[in-house]
Amino acid sequence: MIEYNYKTRVYYRDVDQMGIVYYTRYLEYFEAARTELLRSIGLDVTKIEQMGYFLSVISCHCDYKKSAKFDDELNIITRINELPRSSMKIEYEVFNSGKKLLVTGHTVHSFINSNGKAVKPPKVLIEKLRG
Amino acid sequence: MIEYNYKTRVYYRDVDQMGIVYYTRYLEYFEAARTELLRSIGLDVTKIEQMGYFLSVISCHCDYKKSAKFDDELNIITRINELPRSSMKIEYEVFNSGKKLLVTGHTVHSFINSNGKAVKPPKVLIEKLRG
Amino acid sequence: MIEYNYKTRVYYRDVDQMGIVYYTRYLEYFEAARTELLRSIGLDVTKIEQMGYFLSVISCHCDYKKSAKFDDELNIITRINELPRSSMKIEYEVFNSGKKLLVTGHTVHSFINSNGKAVKPPKVLIEKLRG
Amino acid sequence: MIEYNYKTRVYYRDVDQMGIVYYTRYLEYFEAARTELLRSIGLDVTKIEQMGYFLSVISCHCDYKKSAKFDDELNIITRINELPRSSMKIEYEVFNSGKKLLVTGHTVHSFINSNGKAVKPPKVLIEKLRG
Repeated sequence: MIEYNYKTRVYYRDVDQMGIVYYTRYLEYFEAARTELLRSIGLDVTKIEQMGYFLSVISCHCDYKKSAKFDDELNIITRINELPRSSMKIEYEVFNSGKKLLVTGHTVHSFINSNGKAVKPPKVLIEKLRG
Repeated sequence: MIEYNYKTRVYYRDVDQMGIVYYTRYLEYFEAARTELLRSIGLDVTKIEQMGYFLSVISCHCDYKKSAKFDDELNIITRINELPRSSMKIEYEVFNSGKKLLVTGHTVHSFINSNGKAVKPPKVLIEKLRG
Repeated sequence: MIEYNYKTRVYYRDVDQMGIVYYTRYLEYFEAARTELLRSIGLDVTKIEQMGYFLSVISCHCDYKKSAKFDDELNIITRINELPRSSMKIEYEVFNSGKKLLVTGHTVHSFINSNGKAVKPPKVLIEKLRG
Repeated sequence: MIEYNYKTRVYYRDVDQMGIVYYTRYLEYFEAARTELLRSIGLDVTKIEQMGYFLSVISCHCDYKKSAKFDDELNIITRINELPRSSMKIEYEVFNSGKKLLVTGHTVHSFINSNGKAVKPPKVLIEKLRG
């Protein structure tokens, strides 16, 4: 339905004493990746928030297959494959520059209003995703 | 089989602009929690590593039910419920001081040797878990 | 004038591929340490914020003398040595469990109101520090 | 002597409940910035390490003038102005896209060998900096 390739590089701050990217850092990359995916269809998170919608994470999952190392260039293929209803699923695949698949994962989000109440996804998002 | 209550407190560094704990921070808490669970049965991670075993994260999962806020005291109930075979599952429940369940999650780990090869879990761990 | 010993432990999340604590992590420890120092004199940061005062960091400095490693227990001696005027200086010394001095540093804070304007420090803080 | 403009963007992971970038995150940006500055003169940190030199942070300093917010695009002008002797100073200025100066800072580094002993800076670095 919609796909974005978010590129990032691994720095010392990301790497643990085994010399590999610490497991939570991928989920930080995912946040940047989904922010850029939404921007790529004209939906800045800040604009969404100004419309009164907040994206709340309701679950996350990661499978770690191979390790990324310091200085690796990562491609994070980020996808929304289904129209959001009460929640929105975003999927991620992390590849290194040698096109090896390192990590897969997903996050599930709900939309809440400024009072923290669950609401339907904004129409403009549905329209953009329908394309 | 084995359970540990890891306590931590929420600081500014953990909280995002919605005023709630950023979603990856729970997984950082989980790392501290499982380190202390293992220490509580006499198995320091450093000792395990000196025996030539490294705990590698092969997957993680989190479900976010309620938000933790700045200054909250969290209890992270951490459990190993099954004897590890090729992998070891650790489960987590995060409660606030009002005993509300905020987050549940788990991590799955494999044991690797210093060459990065998957190996069986160390016998001493199995013995400790058998109790 | 006022001193607090904040204790923390080093986990994998804090350590880089040289096997030492990553340099910014000490400044995260400092934030926890000053929060606990203020709590120790009855001044929760949340209460200070409810009174309409926000502590803004205007500078920070760190000198790294020796490295902390995974699993080290750290004592962070945290001090306010001077009455705050337009700004407040907080000093930190990080010791390992062997009482070796690892890191020294300080942060300087201003007080701002909810509009982001610089204001005088809250009277209650001055009184508590005068003791 | 040498200058590099490292660009980065602010995400949720970087921002605290005041809605501004958390103070340690700038020092994480600085690490990425100096890594890219060195790469820009043909000196990958990984290559430097393979030659047996490790860059150790011996001090850091930051002055916070204005706040960066979520989604801001930052330019981090990174400079080495003096030839390193026993240590190397790197200076940073953080600008937002409106060219407002937000933060200034510096880090000081020593060169150590794989045994952790202080050594002179690698000749190739001196040559590159001399230009």
